[in-house]
Amino acid sequence: MGVSAYTDYFKDIDRSLDRYIQELCDFLRIPAVSAYSGSEKAMARSAEWFLGRVRDLGFTGYILPTEGWPIVVARHKYSVSAPNLLIYGHYDVQPEAPLEEWLSSPFEPTFRDGAVFARGANDDKGQLYTYVKALETYRRVTGSIPLNITFLVEGEEEIGSKSLLRFIRENKDLLHSDIFFVSDSSMLSKDIPAITCGFRGIASFEVDLQTMAHDLHSGLFGGVAMNAAEVLSKLLAKMKDSDGKITVPGFYDDVRPLGECERTLMAQIPYDEAAVAEDLGMPSLVGERGYTAIVRKSARPTLDINGMWGGFTGEGSKTVIPAKAFAKISARLVPDQRPEAIFKCFEDFFAANLPFGARADIRYQFGAAPVVTDTDDPNIRLAAEAIKEGFGVSPVFIRSGGTIHIISEIKDSLKIPSMLILGWGRPENRSHSPNERFYVEDFKRATRSLCVLFDKIAKTFGGRSL
Amino acid sequence: MGVSAYTDYFKDIDRSLDRYIQELCDFLRIPAVSAYSGSEKAMARSAEWFLGRVRDLGFTGYILPTEGWPIVVARHKYSVSAPNLLIYGHYDVQPEAPLEEWLSSPFEPTFRDGAVFARGANDDKGQLYTYVKALETYRRVTGSIPLNITFLVEGEEEIGSKSLLRFIRENKDLLHSDIFFVSDSSMLSKDIPAITCGFRGIASFEVDLQTMAHDLHSGLFGGVAMNAAEVLSKLLAKMKDSDGKITVPGFYDDVRPLGECERTLMAQIPYDEAAVAEDLGMPSLVGERGYTAIVRKSARPTLDINGMWGGFTGEGSKTVIPAKAFAKISARLVPDQRPEAIFKCFEDFFAANLPFGARADIRYQFGAAPVVTDTDDPNIRLAAEAIKEGFGVSPVFIRSGGTIHIISEIKDSLKIPSMLILGWGRPENRSHSPNERFYVEDFKRATRSLCVLFDKIAKTFGGRSL
Repeated sequence: MGVSAYTDYFKDIDRSLDRYIQELCDFLRIPAVSAYSGSEKAMARSAEWFLGRVRDLGFTGYILPTEGWPIVVARHKYSVSAPNLLIYGHYDVQPEAPLEEWLSSPFEPTFRDGAVFARGANDDKGQLYTYVKALETYRRVTGSIPLNITFLVEGEEEIGSKSLLRFIRENKDLLHSDIFFVSDSSMLSKDIPAITCGFRGIASFEVDLQTMAHDLHSGLFGGVAMNAAEVLSKLLAKMKDSDGKITVPGFYDDVRPLGECERTLMAQIPYDEAAVAEDLGMPSLVGERGYTAIVRKSARPTLDINGMWGGFTGEGSKTVIPAKAFAKISARLVPDQRPEAIFKCFEDFFAANLPFGARADIRYQFGAAPVVTDTDDPNIRLAAEAIKEGFGVSPVFIRSGGTIHIISEIKDSLKIPSMLILGWGRPENRSHSPNERFYVEDFKRATRSLCVLFDKIAKTFGGRSL
Repeated sequence: MGVSAYTDYFKDIDRSLDRYIQELCDFLRIPAVSAYSGSEKAMARSAEWFLGRVRDLGFTGYILPTEGWPIVVARHKYSVSAPNLLIYGHYDVQPEAPLEEWLSSPFEPTFRDGAVFARGANDDKGQLYTYVKALETYRRVTGSIPLNITFLVEGEEEIGSKSLLRFIRENKDLLHSDIFFVSDSSMLSKDIPAITCGFRGIASFEVDLQTMAHDLHSGLFGGVAMNAAEVLSKLLAKMKDSDGKITVPGFYDDVRPLGECERTLMAQIPYDEAAVAEDLGMPSLVGERGYTAIVRKSARPTLDINGMWGGFTGEGSKTVIPAKAFAKISARLVPDQRPEAIFKCFEDFFAANLPFGARADIRYQFGAAPVVTDTDDPNIRLAAEAIKEGFGVSPVFIRSGGTIHIISEIKDSLKIPSMLILGWGRPENRSHSPNERFYVEDFKRATRSLCVLFDKIAKTFGGRSL
């Protein structure tokens, strides 16, 4: 089956692309930062905007209030015998800080070098929106959508998905599906699309450290006081050795060694370390000794200080001995590490290493278990064929170093047999960083791939129950 | 000579104290934070206010513009044969941050427990103002001030005294004096006044560290990226060992060992470590192994992280790998350490320990050499007698752990034979910290002491050239 079989889809996408991207820009203008308590209006607008666009496709849906941010659920019911697709995404975005490093305003989408730059362009509004527009093209070309489809789109992905986790556990029947879709991950590189067969988990926590009742003058008390910034820096420094090994006792206990087959597969993935390093502004990639870069960034657990601060951080100088210091820390986890157990390791580590007189409050923020999917699934084969049509090149099978909190819960709770994790973003798209972007060409290639995939699924499974 | 000899001064001070303190409150309301570039109006008001109060005493004076903040110079000329006194102080204050820890607004003086709480109450507006009011009482009681007096009051003490250093070097004749006075230091404890015979120096610098072109997503890049917060915490941790020794090569090279006599004197100073620790909210005092607390906080060099920050420090979480991290660091110095040489030690330390691929910009902020004064000076004996009258108890001779940048310059440039460093602040007055305070009782005792001291100096040296 050559490209010609899908020419009508591709022509429609070419004709519609400018409008599709303009619509996406409307979505990107909404500053739906879930981490900010003041985001209430933006979160509501972001959810409503998305629901409006799937209603335009004939979906029925609603916005579900939660204790956190609302969840969008929208359904298209074709027939009892059609395959049931569950498409997951999120309408919330990361904080925009540091604002001064953005070349254009994070919530005013701007086009440069073939990409649209905005917070959320890649993570996840841009990737999510390819599904909506693929369905629009598919319906226009074929006249109908012979599939049962549920969109499940949350507003807490960047802060732990607490409300959605609860919703899933309480609505298993409603969400029961045959195939699960998510595009919140990456291609291998700008020329090589990828199907993701695993995600790392995460354990995220905060440390508040205090050594004295209040800050002190470094002249009058330097020599007898306990500097909280110094104590914290020593604790943070002690978490990892010079080989990049995490030295927190118990951290690696539950790590399942990579199988021979997977190790071989990962060794075959083309990965231009020098090019990646150059793009990141580093002379070379760094990390845990004894593993390749691909393994380190996707199949090994990691530990990062996401933020730290203490003492005087303003303009000028203040010769103070800080009484308090703070850190935000997270670990990425691999099978069979569990976030709660990892958090316990860090609690014990801080308790054991805190100097006498210092107090630390270590608080669990959120966590998610790591996930690996079944690479023998026939739907993964269909997806690979569709991506080859859409991108003109076959995808590779990779593990993502990132975490989608919800995927492990969906896998465990809903027991959906097929999980298609299709990344449309390039690694250099700067999710979570200033100048986040999504390439228009990738939007087009992803939308093409999805049209072909919907076509294949409808033709393979249509008219019969799975 | 009993207390009765000075009864008239003391009665006048008792009658005037409420007004003196209310005037001080007006001074304290002016938010003259020299570290903020936006403080222009407040700095001008603070200088003008002070000049106004010494003009009220019959002084003539002016406000000298500089490249930084203005300098107040005010003079009272009695006769060519009267002793020449130079009184130094500063009208600028430290930043008020962290604002949320203040029990009352830092620039709205508030009375609690017999103290006035405000930024600058102790450092240095409150201590400086005792001189102005002692002169007012002295003049009212005796009818004149038979001394030549120069007030030299700057606005850059908290940021390095750059303009005043230059002014002193360029105006040695103008400032030539017999006795130098400064009260910008501490009593030993609330019951034990002190004459300070030494100050530590300081070397203050900032480190900007960068490891990558921009922040990265900790999922997608965790395992191959270089975390700037991690690199910085390791560098900071490496500056001091578990015995509290500074491990930066060369740091201790120029430290002159304490003499036997001074060591004995310091061992005799009463210092209630347990009470100090309790006030600071610590189970016990900490610091460099092998030295007493008194020696550690006044006669040994120290190193403190005054501030550090990197990555996401806002509300919620952001799973980012920081590309940049920052620290503000300062060392307190003792004879014969020099700030420039110490800075060089840290430059070399960072250069030697920075991992390949990381860049650090280390910038010298300011420095001052340490100072020790001559304890055999007869004017120090007069000051000790006066303080015994004013406080009812003899002062002890101490070294201060703090730094007054200008004192080493005054000692070196002006060659003033007598230096009287008379601390009126209690150690618990929280200079540089939230809830800074100055006790009304101490204002009274200090003003008494100064009246007695001016009386003694006039009687001892009056009518003849020194």
